[in-house]
Amino acid sequence: MTRYLPILDWGRHYTADALASDLVAALIVTIMLVPQSLAYALLAGLPAEMGLYASILPLVAYALFGTSRVLAVGPVAVVSLMTAASVGNLALPGTADYAVAAITLAFISGVMLLAMGFFKLGFLANFLSHPVIAGFITATGLLIAVSQLKHVLGVAASGHTLPDLLISLFENLPAANLPTIIIGVAATAFLFWVRSGLKPLLMKAGLNRRAADILARTGPVAAVAVTTLAAWGLQLGERGVALVGAVPEGLPPLTVPSFDLDLWTSLAGSALLISVIGFVESISVAQTLAAKRRQRIVPDQELVGLGASNVAAAMSGGYPVTGGFARSVVNFDAGAETPAAGAFTALGIALAALVLTPLLFFLPKATLAATIIVAVLSLIDFSILKRSWAYSRADFSAVAATIAATLGLGVSVGISTGVVLSILLFLYKTSRPHIAVVGLVPGTQHFRNVKRHRVKTDPRILSVRVDESLYFANARYLENDLFERVSGASPVRHVILLCSAINEIDLSALESLEAINHRLASMDVTLHLSEVKGPVLDRLQRSDFLNELSGRIFLSHFEAVEALSDGNIATAEPVPALQ
Amino acid sequence: MTRYLPILDWGRHYTADALASDLVAALIVTIMLVPQSLAYALLAGLPAEMGLYASILPLVAYALFGTSRVLAVGPVAVVSLMTAASVGNLALPGTADYAVAAITLAFISGVMLLAMGFFKLGFLANFLSHPVIAGFITATGLLIAVSQLKHVLGVAASGHTLPDLLISLFENLPAANLPTIIIGVAATAFLFWVRSGLKPLLMKAGLNRRAADILARTGPVAAVAVTTLAAWGLQLGERGVALVGAVPEGLPPLTVPSFDLDLWTSLAGSALLISVIGFVESISVAQTLAAKRRQRIVPDQELVGLGASNVAAAMSGGYPVTGGFARSVVNFDAGAETPAAGAFTALGIALAALVLTPLLFFLPKATLAATIIVAVLSLIDFSILKRSWAYSRADFSAVAATIAATLGLGVSVGISTGVVLSILLFLYKTSRPHIAVVGLVPGTQHFRNVKRHRVKTDPRILSVRVDESLYFANARYLENDLFERVSGASPVRHVILLCSAINEIDLSALESLEAINHRLASMDVTLHLSEVKGPVLDRLQRSDFLNELSGRIFLSHFEAVEALSDGNIATAEPVPALQ
Repeated sequence: MTRYLPILDWGRHYTADALASDLVAALIVTIMLVPQSLAYALLAGLPAEMGLYASILPLVAYALFGTSRVLAVGPVAVVSLMTAASVGNLALPGTADYAVAAITLAFISGVMLLAMGFFKLGFLANFLSHPVIAGFITATGLLIAVSQLKHVLGVAASGHTLPDLLISLFENLPAANLPTIIIGVAATAFLFWVRSGLKPLLMKAGLNRRAADILARTGPVAAVAVTTLAAWGLQLGERGVALVGAVPEGLPPLTVPSFDLDLWTSLAGSALLISVIGFVESISVAQTLAAKRRQRIVPDQELVGLGASNVAAAMSGGYPVTGGFARSVVNFDAGAETPAAGAFTALGIALAALVLTPLLFFLPKATLAATIIVAVLSLIDFSILKRSWAYSRADFSAVAATIAATLGLGVSVGISTGVVLSILLFLYKTSRPHIAVVGLVPGTQHFRNVKRHRVKTDPRILSVRVDESLYFANARYLENDLFERVSGASPVRHVILLCSAINEIDLSALESLEAINHRLASMDVTLHLSEVKGPVLDRLQRSDFLNELSGRIFLSHFEAVEALSDGNIATAEPVPALQ
Repeated sequence: MTRYLPILDWGRHYTADALASDLVAALIVTIMLVPQSLAYALLAGLPAEMGLYASILPLVAYALFGTSRVLAVGPVAVVSLMTAASVGNLALPGTADYAVAAITLAFISGVMLLAMGFFKLGFLANFLSHPVIAGFITATGLLIAVSQLKHVLGVAASGHTLPDLLISLFENLPAANLPTIIIGVAATAFLFWVRSGLKPLLMKAGLNRRAADILARTGPVAAVAVTTLAAWGLQLGERGVALVGAVPEGLPPLTVPSFDLDLWTSLAGSALLISVIGFVESISVAQTLAAKRRQRIVPDQELVGLGASNVAAAMSGGYPVTGGFARSVVNFDAGAETPAAGAFTALGIALAALVLTPLLFFLPKATLAATIIVAVLSLIDFSILKRSWAYSRADFSAVAATIAATLGLGVSVGISTGVVLSILLFLYKTSRPHIAVVGLVPGTQHFRNVKRHRVKTDPRILSVRVDESLYFANARYLENDLFERVSGASPVRHVILLCSAINEIDLSALESLEAINHRLASMDVTLHLSEVKGPVLDRLQRSDFLNELSGRIFLSHFEAVEALSDGNIATAEPVPALQ
C-alpha cells in the first residue's frame, strides 16, 4: 500500500516540528507561486485564474501520491508554452473551446502518466538524452522570452516559432504603447536587480545566504504590488496599458474534460510530449534535492503522482502541471520536510483565489511578462552546444538539431527531432562497429589493439575484437570486414573472435556467424571464440552453431592464443604499435 | 570508371566460350521468364504485356551497371504484390491511371536506389533483420497464393490483406466457373508434379541433376502451351474462362512517368519499401551465387544497377523490377558467365513480344495463376517462427509481428512493423544492460561473473562489468544499479568499472559517470576504470572527467585489482559460484 500511497509512510511519523517547518515553507512558496501562476496562465494563453486553479488541487494530489518530500508542483514555463503551442492549433486564445482543450490536455496527460506509472514505463523517459533536453529547454526558454516581448511592448503578436514571433512583433511594432513599455522595462530591470543585486546586498547586511535567497524570491510579489498600485493610481488602463481585468472570485470550479474523439486524437501527441518532458524535468529536480538529504525517489511512483496531479488539474479548471525547478528549490531551502508543505501551499493559493482576486484587476500584463522573462532567462544556456561539440559530434548534432527545430518549427517538432535523431545516430554508430586486431601486452595476459600498443602476435593467428553487440544492423558488416582481413593474410590458420565486447548475438548475427564459420572452413581457417559472456553463451547453446563451429570456445583469450600458438606467443618479439 | 560501369571490366576479356555459355543460359532463362513475366504483371494488376516490357530494357540496364555476373533481373512475385498494394490505393486496376502509377512507382524506386547507391547508403538495408525478412517473405507468399485463387476459381475477388481476400473469395464463391477450375487445378497439379515428380524421373532416365533441373523449369511453358491450345480448341472463352485476350504486338513503347507531386507523395513510402525489399532480396541472391564462384558483389554498385533497371522499366512501359531468386539460380546453373547473358535474355523477350503476343490471346488467366501459386509456395516457410522461438523471444516477437501485420494489415504495414519493432526491441535491450560483479578466475589474470564461476574477490573492492555501451538510454540505469550495490556493501572502498564491453560513452553517460564519481567520493569510495578501449579513452580525454576521477585508469582489470588489493587477491580463497 505504501508503494502507491507514500503518505501512509511519512504521515504516520508526522511531528509538530515538521508541521512548523512545512507551514513556513508553504507560506514562502505561496508568495512566490501566486504571481508565477498568473504569469504562466498568461503564457499558456489562458485566463489568469486558471493558473491559480492549477496550483491548488494538483498540489494536494501530489502530496498524496508523490515520493519527493519537497517537489513543488504547479504550472511551469516550458509546459505552459507547450500547452499554448498544442491548444493554439485547435482554438483561439480567450475562447471557451481553448480553455476546454487545455483542460482536456491536462486530463489526457494525467491518464498517460498514470498508465506509464502502473505499467512501469518510466524508463521510456531515458530516451530523452541529457544534451537533447538541455538544448530543448534552452530553445524553449528563448521562445518564451521572445513571446513575452509583446506584453512588454503593448502590441499584439502571435506565433509558435522564433521567425513567426519576430516577424509578428516587428510588424506590430508601430502600435507599441509607451506607458506599457515603461512598466514592462522597469519591472524587468527591477526583477533582474533583485536577482543579481539584492541578494549580495542582503548578505552584506548580515542575512545568511538562504534567507537572502528566499527574500529575493519575493521580488515578483513586490513588482506586482507596486505596478498594480501604479496602474490603479495613474489610471493606466485608460492610457492603453493592458490589465489582467476581472478575475472570478472563489475556489476552483469543478470541470470535466471533453471526451470528443477528434479532440483527443489531435491532442494525444502533444499530451505524450508534455507528459514525458514534464516527467523528466520533475524527476531530475526531485532526484537532485532528494540526494542532498539522502532520500529516495521512486520514478514509477513519481509518474503516478504527476498523473494524479494532472487529472486533478483537469477536474478543477487547471491545465497541465509538473514539478517546477525554482519553486522546489525554494521549498527545500525554506525547510519543507514533508509533502504536507505542498498541501499547505495549496491552502495558501486557495485563500489567494478567494481573497486577492479583486485586487488583480489593475495588475498590468507587462508585469507578469517581466516575471516570466526574468524567470526563463535562467533556462537559456547555449553552453551545451560548446560542451557537446568538444565531446562528440553525434551529441552535438542532436543538440543543434533540437535547438534549430524547436526555434524554427515549434516545440513538438523540436523535441521529437531530438529524440529521433539521437536514436538514429546511436543505431548508425552500432551498425558500423569498431573492429580491432589485438595482440598480447608483454608480461601480462591482456590483449590490446595492435595499432595502439606494443604487443606480441603470432602470424598464424588473427585475434579480432569486435567492439559491439552483434545484431541485424551490423551482422553483414562484420562478415565483410572479416573476409577483407583474412583474404589478405595468407599465413592465417586460426581466427579468434575476442567476444568481451559482444553483449548480445541476435538471430541475424547468428546466421552471419554461421556463414563466417562455413566460409572460413572452406578456406582451411578455423574459427574460435574467446571470453564469450554467460548470457551470450547460454543463447548460443540453444542453436546448432556450437556443434558446427570448426574451432573451440575458450574461457580467456590468453588461453586461446596460448593453446593455438603452441607456446610461440611467449617467445614472440613485441611489434611496435602502428600509431 | 569500372566502379560505375563494371561492363568495362568484364567486357574487355569477353571470349567466344563465354559468348556460347551466355547464349545457352539466355535461351533457357527466356523460356522460363516469358510465362513468369505475364503472370507477375497479372499479379500486379497490370496488362500482361507490361510484364514482358519489364523484362527487356531493365535487363540491359543491369548488364551495364550491375556487379553480379549471373543475377537475372525482372518482375518478381513479392515486388509485384507490393506494387498492386501500393498502386491499388490510388487507381482501379485496368485503368490508364493505374498503369501510369505503376510506371511512376518504378521511376521513383529507381531514383531512390540510384541515390542510395551514389551516397553509399546500402547499409540502410541492414536494418531489415534476417528473421523479419524471412517472416515477411513467407507472409507475402501466402498472400500472393491466396490472391491467385480467384483466377483458379474464375471469380472476382479483391483485397490486400488475408481476411479481406478470404471474405471476398468466400462471398464470390457461388459464381465459380467449372471449366476455369478444371484448367486451374489441372495446371497447378501439373506444375507441382513437374517440380517434385519430373526431376527424379528425368534423373532416373539418365540426365544429370543440372539438366533435369533446367528441363523441369520449362514446365510453365508447357502448361501455357497446352492450356492455350485447349482454350482455343474448346472455345473456352465462351464458357466463361477468363483469357489474357489481345496483347499489343511489338517492342516496348517509350513511356514517361508522371511528375504529379501528389502522386509522388502518395507513392514515396511504398517506393522506399519496394526499393529496400527489392535490394535486400536481390543482393542476397547475388551474394550467394557469387560466393560459389568466389566472385565479388559491390553492394553500393548493386544499388546503382537496380536503380538503372527500374528507371529503364519506367521509360519502357514496365513496372518495378529486381533480381529474382529462381531465375538467377537457373541462369547460374545454365552456365551464364557474364551479365551479357542478361542482355541476350532481353533480346529473347523482345523477340517474344514481337512474335508470340498474338498466340497469347487464348491463354487462360488460370494457367498464369497456377504458375504463380506453384512459384510462391517455395517462399512460404513458417519454420522461421520455430527457429526464432527457440533462439530468442525478441527475434520471435519481431517475426511474429511482421507475419501477423503483413497478413492482417498489408505488405507496407507488415514490413514497417518488422523494422520498427526490431529496432525498438534492440533499444529496449540496450537500455537495461546486463551488469555483472566479477572476480578473478584462479590461476589466470581473467575476471568472470561471481554468479557463474568459482572466482576470488576482495571484499573491499567491487569489480563491476557493464555489458553495454553507455549511452543516454541506459545512463541512469547504471547509476541506480551501482548505488543499490554499493549502499548494501559497506566494506567496499573501491569500485572498478571493467570497461571491456563499453564501446561508447556518450555525453549523457559521461554526465552519469561524473555523478557516480561524485556520489561515490562523498561516501569515501574511489571509482576506477579498467580496460577502457582506445576510442573511448580518446573521447574521455576531451572532457574534464579524467581530472575529476577519484581513482585511476588501469590497462587491465588484473592490474587494477592487484594494485588496489595490496596483493590480497593472490592469497584469497575462491568463493563458490552462486549458481
